[in-house]
Amino acid sequence: MASRMKLKLKTVFVLYFMVSLLGLVYALMQLGQRCDCTEHDMPKDRIISRLRGELHRLQEQIRKSEATKPPPKLLPKPSVPTIFVITPTYARLVQKAELTRLSQTFLHVPQLHWIVVEDSPHKTPLVTDLLMKSGLTYTHLHMPTAKDRKLQEGDPSWLKPRGVEQRNEGLRWLREDRRAQPGGDTQQGVVYFADDDNTYSLQIFEEMRSTQRVSVWPVGLVGGMKYERPVVEGGKVVRFHTGWRPSRPFPMDMAGFAVSLKLVLANPDSCFDGEAPMGFLESSFLQGLVTMNELEPKADNCSKVLVWHTRTEKPKMKREEALQAQGLGSDPAVEV
Amino acid sequence: MASRMKLKLKTVFVLYFMVSLLGLVYALMQLGQRCDCTEHDMPKDRIISRLRGELHRLQEQIRKSEATKPPPKLLPKPSVPTIFVITPTYARLVQKAELTRLSQTFLHVPQLHWIVVEDSPHKTPLVTDLLMKSGLTYTHLHMPTAKDRKLQEGDPSWLKPRGVEQRNEGLRWLREDRRAQPGGDTQQGVVYFADDDNTYSLQIFEEMRSTQRVSVWPVGLVGGMKYERPVVEGGKVVRFHTGWRPSRPFPMDMAGFAVSLKLVLANPDSCFDGEAPMGFLESSFLQGLVTMNELEPKADNCSKVLVWHTRTEKPKMKREEALQAQGLGSDPAVEV
Repeated sequence: MASRMKLKLKTVFVLYFMVSLLGLVYALMQLGQRCDCTEHDMPKDRIISRLRGELHRLQEQIRKSEATKPPPKLLPKPSVPTIFVITPTYARLVQKAELTRLSQTFLHVPQLHWIVVEDSPHKTPLVTDLLMKSGLTYTHLHMPTAKDRKLQEGDPSWLKPRGVEQRNEGLRWLREDRRAQPGGDTQQGVVYFADDDNTYSLQIFEEMRSTQRVSVWPVGLVGGMKYERPVVEGGKVVRFHTGWRPSRPFPMDMAGFAVSLKLVLANPDSCFDGEAPMGFLESSFLQGLVTMNELEPKADNCSKVLVWHTRTEKPKMKREEALQAQGLGSDPAVEV
Repeated sequence: MASRMKLKLKTVFVLYFMVSLLGLVYALMQLGQRCDCTEHDMPKDRIISRLRGELHRLQEQIRKSEATKPPPKLLPKPSVPTIFVITPTYARLVQKAELTRLSQTFLHVPQLHWIVVEDSPHKTPLVTDLLMKSGLTYTHLHMPTAKDRKLQEGDPSWLKPRGVEQRNEGLRWLREDRRAQPGGDTQQGVVYFADDDNTYSLQIFEEMRSTQRVSVWPVGLVGGMKYERPVVEGGKVVRFHTGWRPSRPFPMDMAGFAVSLKLVLANPDSCFDGEAPMGFLESSFLQGLVTMNELEPKADNCSKVLVWHTRTEKPKMKREEALQAQGLGSDPAVEV
């Protein structure tokens, strides 16, 4: 009887010992897991910044592995409309710098096709080489501006519009190229005119991608203003915030709108009119395509500035000229 | 005998029960104490938790894709030195545009840590927000320029050097931060001073990454020249191609050199001297660190221009002012 009692107690003892030990171990594990609050000692900004960096690194890693790995089961690729960016450009000291940083912006934008049109009787080696190394999908064109339409040295920049023939050449190529492409998806796309000195946020490209006919948004630092923008009421553009001739049909900068490829193709003769009065260049193109009422406001009902009409200073070459006079100028073989 | 045994066992049982209970209670209390991190559940914690979640998701994604693909040749991962880019910046109309395109450039560069130092008595919401959304690893600092050293409205830009205190604050932070980081790899790195209006090719960052002490290369469109550059003979810098005072110790622009982190840390007092005569700011920093003979020429023996000293025009606000006078100015709530 006593022996049985002893046995029973021993069993209870051992059982209790094991159960309580398990509980303790579990509690200790919990302690370890939930309590890595030691990181709270670090400034939170540093944690956030570190996490962001790590996140970016992983995203890059995934992007790269996605790029190198063989295509999977050939699923129909979700069709993202291509953005055709038409950029007129001309030879000048800052040209390579401008195109370099612009290409870096575009390199972040998926499904972008860059149409670069040189104001030149031939394609220059500088632009050819830059495009080749850019990593972008591109088309390289050229179209010299007619002599009587060209700005002369010393002319103020507003005297004659720049880039007219080049933008029209871009449109011509696009229409021809799309006609030549078979398949039903070739009319999916958006056309945007991006000068090489402006500044573009990456978001603006996602805003314009859904353009049905003509989409619009504010442009910063343009026309002597902090920004110009379409004024939106009830989801519709009702007028324009601009400092000069708001009565123009479309008082907007070139950087402030995009047109659907479909609309461009459906209107094969629409183009920019180089003879249009000052400030009416954008209107000369848009007038035949759309009415104010049809404009699609983007960028949170035109309340956000996502594009800036920045201008780069013309560099002074005073010392260069002085040195050249002494035969000590910069080596012309070095591309700048 | 059996009764005594029974008694003894009971005592042991009770004793053990009490001791283990005490232990458990203590563990539970600890659990409660350290883990009231929920109290910190403020916006930043939410960001951190969101980032952690995202990070975890990506890690899972990579783990899964890693699990399905055949293992590569198990190369040891090369440790890439971090590039610490110190950028002084100040509030002006084009600030957001400039920082936007600069951040897009840096986003292409692996292992880059952006140290942005505002010339301001506090961190501004514009820069704070821009950095937060940039996707970059960054540190946000501020340091106002002393009043007597500040350029006044209308002063020519060369009268007083800009960004001196800010670059020095960046150096101060870097030295302090590295001291606080344990581990042997923390001295691996390169320091570069990148103003927010210049243009940087992506290649320049790979050129500077291997800097041992001080590396140098040409800078385009600077000093009234097509480019300034160190002249290299037999792999060594022997003089400088510059249009002005080539006799300065280091007649180079800020954008034309990078310094190894090791060298910056080994010389804890090296900084920029705001009182240095015009054109001697770079020299004031480099003089204590390196001799001309030790400079490491990059960019194909300093024969390629991979950085441009571009300058952005100050936008005119003539029409804005006219409209403001009529109470029709741009909405100040819209960030430009």
